[in-house]
Amino acid sequence: MTIVVVEQDRDRALAIVDALKGAGDCEVVVIGHSSGLARRIAAHSPDVVLIDIENPTRDMLEELTLASGPLERPVAMFVSGAASGLARAAVEAGISAYVVDGLRPERLKPILDTAIARFHVVHQMRAELAETRRALEERKVIDRAKGLIMKARGVNEDDAYAILRKAAMDQGRRVAEVAEALVTAAGLLS
Amino acid sequence: MTIVVVEQDRDRALAIVDALKGAGDCEVVVIGHSSGLARRIAAHSPDVVLIDIENPTRDMLEELTLASGPLERPVAMFVSGAASGLARAAVEAGISAYVVDGLRPERLKPILDTAIARFHVVHQMRAELAETRRALEERKVIDRAKGLIMKARGVNEDDAYAILRKAAMDQGRRVAEVAEALVTAAGLLS
Repeated sequence: MTIVVVEQDRDRALAIVDALKGAGDCEVVVIGHSSGLARRIAAHSPDVVLIDIENPTRDMLEELTLASGPLERPVAMFVSGAASGLARAAVEAGISAYVVDGLRPERLKPILDTAIARFHVVHQMRAELAETRRALEERKVIDRAKGLIMKARGVNEDDAYAILRKAAMDQGRRVAEVAEALVTAAGLLS
Repeated sequence: MTIVVVEQDRDRALAIVDALKGAGDCEVVVIGHSSGLARRIAAHSPDVVLIDIENPTRDMLEELTLASGPLERPVAMFVSGAASGLARAAVEAGISAYVVDGLRPERLKPILDTAIARFHVVHQMRAELAETRRALEERKVIDRAKGLIMKARGVNEDDAYAILRKAAMDQGRRVAEVAEALVTAAGLLS
């Protein structure tokens, strides 16, 4: 397991690394809040990102959140009490654990485990939602394309679908793509 | 804000109530892990449920999770270190905060705030998923019903839909319901 730790303070960074190494077999990379953070985090493809910030402003928190890619990987964020009002924004941005005043070395492992579990549950739900939306959109556009073909060529629904499918096969594309192109073209021509 | 605290230990219960009352205006109800827990929790329609259990077994944890209704309201669960392996199950069941060895009075408020924020984000996503799935299913069943009408009555797609819609209006039902009934009936008759 690879863990990227984003931490400015050298002493805290050492304590975190010790605790993580003590809790199990893992590779730990420490990065400061520096420029190119997003690229540097992504380069390690970490299993989880741990961000520790004291007294963050809303802007800092937003920047770090964006850089950590919370929709692509589990991110656990530790902040000081002053930032408790930013919990909602952090959670909405996809942060998997938002811990106020709770960075104690012996609790790091369970917090990361829970963050990883939560990330996977939400990620799965997000993927299902995207897939269901896509299926619904495709169905709508295929229906519209069938309607256009039925009207233009005076054929019934089954024949219209057969025409669409044949075009898709001939072009090596998906039926939904051909339908989308047809609907767009019809829009341009009418 | 109404908070239901599920706690067996009298001293811990008092400390939790003190901390919550100190952190802001709220009504706090304490319940033991007793029978009829689900009914008793629901009766208070709490804004958030706080469950504290020491050394829970997997069965206890499951029972308490079910009783707390984590899909209907935010639930924050505090467990001792022994239960850290159960994080995944708790998160998958919908628990909004799963905190291992972290019940300290001064940290309760931010944990509950984060749990509430997380609940609303996930709840919203779940509702969107259910709605999109329903729309897709309805579209499929309406398509099948239209196909049946087109074949049986020799009409085109628009006419088939008009027939469905008229039946729905006459019966004071939704088009999707009439379509569903038609598809079921056709299945029984063929």
